[in-house]
Amino acid sequence: MKNVFFLIGLLPLLLFAQHSSYERDKNIIEGFFREALIQKTAYEDLRYLCKKIGHRLSGSVGADKAVKWTSQRLKEHGADTVWLQEVMVPNWKRGNKEIAKIVNGKNLTICALGNSVPTPFEGITAEVIEVFRIEQLDSLGREKIQGKIVFFNRPMDPTFINTFRAYGGCVDQRSSGASEASKYGALGVLVRSMTLSLDNYPHTGSVNYQSFSKPIPAAAISTLDANYLSEQLKKNPKLQVFWKQECKMLPDTLSHNVIAEIKGAEFPEEIILVGGHLDSWDKGEGAHDDGAGCVQAMEVIYLFKKLGIKPKRTIRCVLFMNEENGMKGALKYEEEATKNKEKHIACIESDRGGFTPKGFQIEGGYSNEEIIRKWYKLLEPYDLYKIVEGYGGLDISPFRKHKDVLLMGLEPDSQRYFDYHHADTDVFEAIHPRELELGAASLATLVYLLSEYGTNLR
Amino acid sequence: MKNVFFLIGLLPLLLFAQHSSYERDKNIIEGFFREALIQKTAYEDLRYLCKKIGHRLSGSVGADKAVKWTSQRLKEHGADTVWLQEVMVPNWKRGNKEIAKIVNGKNLTICALGNSVPTPFEGITAEVIEVFRIEQLDSLGREKIQGKIVFFNRPMDPTFINTFRAYGGCVDQRSSGASEASKYGALGVLVRSMTLSLDNYPHTGSVNYQSFSKPIPAAAISTLDANYLSEQLKKNPKLQVFWKQECKMLPDTLSHNVIAEIKGAEFPEEIILVGGHLDSWDKGEGAHDDGAGCVQAMEVIYLFKKLGIKPKRTIRCVLFMNEENGMKGALKYEEEATKNKEKHIACIESDRGGFTPKGFQIEGGYSNEEIIRKWYKLLEPYDLYKIVEGYGGLDISPFRKHKDVLLMGLEPDSQRYFDYHHADTDVFEAIHPRELELGAASLATLVYLLSEYGTNLR
Repeated sequence: MKNVFFLIGLLPLLLFAQHSSYERDKNIIEGFFREALIQKTAYEDLRYLCKKIGHRLSGSVGADKAVKWTSQRLKEHGADTVWLQEVMVPNWKRGNKEIAKIVNGKNLTICALGNSVPTPFEGITAEVIEVFRIEQLDSLGREKIQGKIVFFNRPMDPTFINTFRAYGGCVDQRSSGASEASKYGALGVLVRSMTLSLDNYPHTGSVNYQSFSKPIPAAAISTLDANYLSEQLKKNPKLQVFWKQECKMLPDTLSHNVIAEIKGAEFPEEIILVGGHLDSWDKGEGAHDDGAGCVQAMEVIYLFKKLGIKPKRTIRCVLFMNEENGMKGALKYEEEATKNKEKHIACIESDRGGFTPKGFQIEGGYSNEEIIRKWYKLLEPYDLYKIVEGYGGLDISPFRKHKDVLLMGLEPDSQRYFDYHHADTDVFEAIHPRELELGAASLATLVYLLSEYGTNLR
Repeated sequence: MKNVFFLIGLLPLLLFAQHSSYERDKNIIEGFFREALIQKTAYEDLRYLCKKIGHRLSGSVGADKAVKWTSQRLKEHGADTVWLQEVMVPNWKRGNKEIAKIVNGKNLTICALGNSVPTPFEGITAEVIEVFRIEQLDSLGREKIQGKIVFFNRPMDPTFINTFRAYGGCVDQRSSGASEASKYGALGVLVRSMTLSLDNYPHTGSVNYQSFSKPIPAAAISTLDANYLSEQLKKNPKLQVFWKQECKMLPDTLSHNVIAEIKGAEFPEEIILVGGHLDSWDKGEGAHDDGAGCVQAMEVIYLFKKLGIKPKRTIRCVLFMNEENGMKGALKYEEEATKNKEKHIACIESDRGGFTPKGFQIEGGYSNEEIIRKWYKLLEPYDLYKIVEGYGGLDISPFRKHKDVLLMGLEPDSQRYFDYHHADTDVFEAIHPRELELGAASLATLVYLLSEYGTNLR
């Protein structure tokens, strides 16, 4: 990531910031923020999505309802065209509530990880071995692991300022732990929930089974109970845990990406995508992850139409299906776009929660200097100071293989995100209306600037 | 406020950012953030202040307890010296819970404004006239106002990005409304609560009686009930409200500023003040306003001592008494400092809530360019991007009259602040530990840099 000091080489170009269209752009952006903060359209859409529909795991009734309602709503917002794109998605079901307890001890709060296999019908009763890093498995070896439950208990590191970095430093336990432990004969894995909060909510998320080993059951355990289990193991390394979960993977099922478009007036073939993912886990209401990103992207359509702004380039709002446990929607979207020779010039994703925006992360061969040079003065009044090279988002990542597509991700404040992520706490009430709306208006601002000026930033 | 574009004139100076002490400074700052985010000392101090002591209105038992406990705690944090500074403060008491209702209608949720006079013992029963701006009073005139309750109902403007600007645009109704309405014979004023949230909590705050008119009772009404009353007045402009409050101002009483110091090793006579205000309103627990600022300033002392950093200049943590309804502590502190010929080179205040910090506002004849030039590279890793000319804070404002004192205020994200401000909702649970701690470490960082390099920024 480069910083503002690089600006110093750009002196001559900076002077263009005061170009003739500056005042018009400034007024339009003011309009976005004004309308968003007064009308709170994204917030009211999110209320419906969370409270009337609820969670939306791929293959669920909620996901189907969400596809229908958002496409209807995007028509009401005035999109020129709204359509559904068929995509086959995994259909994983949690089944009855999971049970875990220390034999002759207390219950443990767990939930199956997404895509996990079930335990045997009679459950697993086994000793537990606590590990902190996947690499430890090899030194422990089959002798110490076979027939046991492996308990991955490495906490997220609180010292990262951006909590996504702490998540990134821990999530291998959840995604790869099961396959790696299975190699040494483990019966299953319990994984410390990916959160910086000490509470009694298990946080789910997907487990990725690798072909090199037999799939074994995987579950998340709340951070409080992870600490408790760890203490008990110190006292009695031979303690046993009973654990039963009934989840299962059904055959793939038909679902949809939701797509809405405003046709560009001058360069209709140049597409600027803005999106989030419509599916969620089957915990909470998928408010921050990623109802927020969806209703913000929907509000971009609303804002352009409400304010009567005719974009030069085509704006496409895409609500991706199945980000959480397969990414099938994102893969399908890019595949179709390529097949149809569509020209995406920029893809912008919002999937880091509905918190106060700090700015944008940028990838795709574009440097932050270019964006700062062109638009810093328009973004600064909205405290969008952080314009850095980084990561766009998972659903737009299939576009990385295309040359010259600008990928950008909205970066909100991350401090509270993992309090809610993939847990029962991720509900509408965890969203602050102004924080959410500032994100929506920020996305509209970026989409507007790209639609006016394209991505010829170099 | 000047922006980053001004950097371009500073090219030669920027190169000094890579000076030899850079690595040491970087490591020390990393230490502050690491320790704050792991130990959460400010957060645990705030838990005590809110949950064991509670609200702390000047002259209350809570304020006395807070003085004793924080001075004890600052000793535990390792301050070289801790002392109390005597100050006489107003002693306003709310008395029994206020009552308001529409005659033959529903109850209204109100609370007396701080420093308000009571209603007559039998209460006020009167017609209500709704106004939106103080200037309206003059055109309405005595004829329309005399014998009535004036209902100030201008809402905060949601379109400001920084909610403090919305507050600033509204608060004249609360502070001056009573004296202005009294000129025209009003019996009292009900003022719409200063919040962007639509809820049923009245938000108190001080009313300032001017000598030009007779003091009349003043109360805040919740935003929901303000809307309700406004609707009812449209249906029946003759409706009457019954209102009774028993608050009273007792004679001034003795209280204290709490002061703790780490003596500077090289320039002990140069003082860097960091502080917040220890008093609060008698609503909620004074968590964001300003328990947060107090425990953050206390953590500055803790961090220096815990990490064994010997500052070159003297660091003084000041917990001011009576910011809310008199500012007597701030005035006394500056008066004594002047009398004792103390040399304050910088005063830093945290009184905008315990939310994720964005950066700092600067005043006192210093421009943001100077701070950016010297320290941007050290602040950027902590997302302290916003370094702007603006406002330091009320408790350090008496130092404005001294030449060359740098005044700075921590600027946290403001979106949620007025949901809690001066209301029952301002409790410990409204504080996020990481957001609070990032603010504490940001203050320690700024104090460290000033203690190392002084304020010779030009």
